[in-house]
Amino acid sequence: MTVIGVDVGGTKILARFIDPETGAASGRVKVPTPKTGTADVLDAIAGVVDELDPDRTATHVGIGVPGLVDGEGVVARCPNITGWDSPVDVRGELTPRLDRVVVVGNDVNCGALAEHRIGAGKGVDDLLVVFVGTGVGGGLILDGKLRVGHRGLAGEIGHLTVVGDGRPCGCGEDGHLEAYAGKAGMEREARARAAAGERNALADLAGDSAIKSRHIEQALESGDSVAESIIDDAANALAMGIGNLATVLDLDRVVLGGGVVDKLGQPFLDQISQSAHFGGFGIEMCELVLAKRLDDAGVVGAAILAADAA
Amino acid sequence: MTVIGVDVGGTKILARFIDPETGAASGRVKVPTPKTGTADVLDAIAGVVDELDPDRTATHVGIGVPGLVDGEGVVARCPNITGWDSPVDVRGELTPRLDRVVVVGNDVNCGALAEHRIGAGKGVDDLLVVFVGTGVGGGLILDGKLRVGHRGLAGEIGHLTVVGDGRPCGCGEDGHLEAYAGKAGMEREARARAAAGERNALADLAGDSAIKSRHIEQALESGDSVAESIIDDAANALAMGIGNLATVLDLDRVVLGGGVVDKLGQPFLDQISQSAHFGGFGIEMCELVLAKRLDDAGVVGAAILAADAA
Repeated sequence: MTVIGVDVGGTKILARFIDPETGAASGRVKVPTPKTGTADVLDAIAGVVDELDPDRTATHVGIGVPGLVDGEGVVARCPNITGWDSPVDVRGELTPRLDRVVVVGNDVNCGALAEHRIGAGKGVDDLLVVFVGTGVGGGLILDGKLRVGHRGLAGEIGHLTVVGDGRPCGCGEDGHLEAYAGKAGMEREARARAAAGERNALADLAGDSAIKSRHIEQALESGDSVAESIIDDAANALAMGIGNLATVLDLDRVVLGGGVVDKLGQPFLDQISQSAHFGGFGIEMCELVLAKRLDDAGVVGAAILAADAA
Repeated sequence: MTVIGVDVGGTKILARFIDPETGAASGRVKVPTPKTGTADVLDAIAGVVDELDPDRTATHVGIGVPGLVDGEGVVARCPNITGWDSPVDVRGELTPRLDRVVVVGNDVNCGALAEHRIGAGKGVDDLLVVFVGTGVGGGLILDGKLRVGHRGLAGEIGHLTVVGDGRPCGCGEDGHLEAYAGKAGMEREARARAAAGERNALADLAGDSAIKSRHIEQALESGDSVAESIIDDAANALAMGIGNLATVLDLDRVVLGGGVVDKLGQPFLDQISQSAHFGGFGIEMCELVLAKRLDDAGVVGAAILAADAA
């Protein structure tokens, strides 16, 4: 079975043929993401699929988008795509135009599916995949199936409250995991501390730009105490959020990836699993493992999502 | 289909015939729970079933026990049953003796199933049921099915960490939901405050006995400020734990029951849903509703569990 996977990002749209069993990819069509509204984004998606597969060899198209997608393929909003602030029925719009089975999913969920089928979560029925980058996203596999939820909220681990009345989150609420463990949240904290007179390597290294994962790595290597305390907070927040889900869902494994985890690696995972907040009712907790960092994971996962619907 | 439900409690074992579709019950055999070890408890379970159904009219027996039960019917431990501190294969032991299909589940999960099928969660596919009593227990229904987990941990909401380095929980860890919202945890806090010179109605009303739900109600009615702050903490802890699960699992409804909720009623649910910790990503949260307080819910739920296996 050959399936087309499409990854719709904030800057580019990429389409490839994918073998959903192995993740093997072929062909590649890439265009910039239009910044002129959702109608143009839909045209661009249809365009990359037509260009990749003019002869219609694929019967299924999976599309991953960076937004809240319900079980029917309606995308409520995509904060990173200009002009996408009201619901669009992507599946309904594109099914007749592509004349194929169209399945739409959240991009993080697609990445989680890829880790589940061909990555570090292969063969694990009850799995959480967490990506720690600018924000914190997650995907939840229960009984071997991606859990989406009626509103598409399932797996949104970044917006778990981990500290009552805690740091402000980018979403407008307080104390969420993402405010502690996402790069944007760490940056806000580092800059706030610098502004309060607590000079620190994270703010210094980033200067006027956004803090990058390598700045975090460098600040830790330099022994900067503020960076250490910010990373401690991040590890404790991840320990609480992940540990809670692992307990209450009785998960077998948690896979961690994303820019921050890729840079900090196994020592960061050890810090999470050794945190006192990684609780669990006196029972041995599930294992934490590094993601496999698959090539084009979003495209592969979108194709798997479509193949699952077949 | 007629099924036998058995509820194994810390003080009594009750068996009834149950129609799993309606919850209608008939017959009733009750014995005290033996305090002389697990072999005697198994004998007592077999005894009530034989006495209720000497002619073997029922083909299925569902058994609810107050302990950690894995998906195979092995009960790891039952803290409230004397001598049950190592695993017992209840299903394996009782299947040949009862010569019927035997299914074993956690008693709280059985109560949650009863609320799902014939109570306040009827018709809701993605449901959390939380019982707030001496401790805090929960059961999770996803896609219409009870989630148990390989180790039987699923739904153990009482042991979610809600406050990092928070109050000690009865399980030995810190900051768990149960330490804030369970009666035992509230009692420890009220007595600790009294011992620290902060005289309060909760400790006064209970005297040397355990604090009861009616003491909490009375203390609140008297306007006692310590009781109010302890209940505020409980509501905030429940808001965080329940809100987090409702978001990350995209639940449709949460049903709350148990002695504390039965006494405090709708105002307590309103306090939970209005807490700032009942977050949720800018999306309308799922509804909180009072449990239906079904008669013999444990027996009914155990029978439903067995019927589901048919």
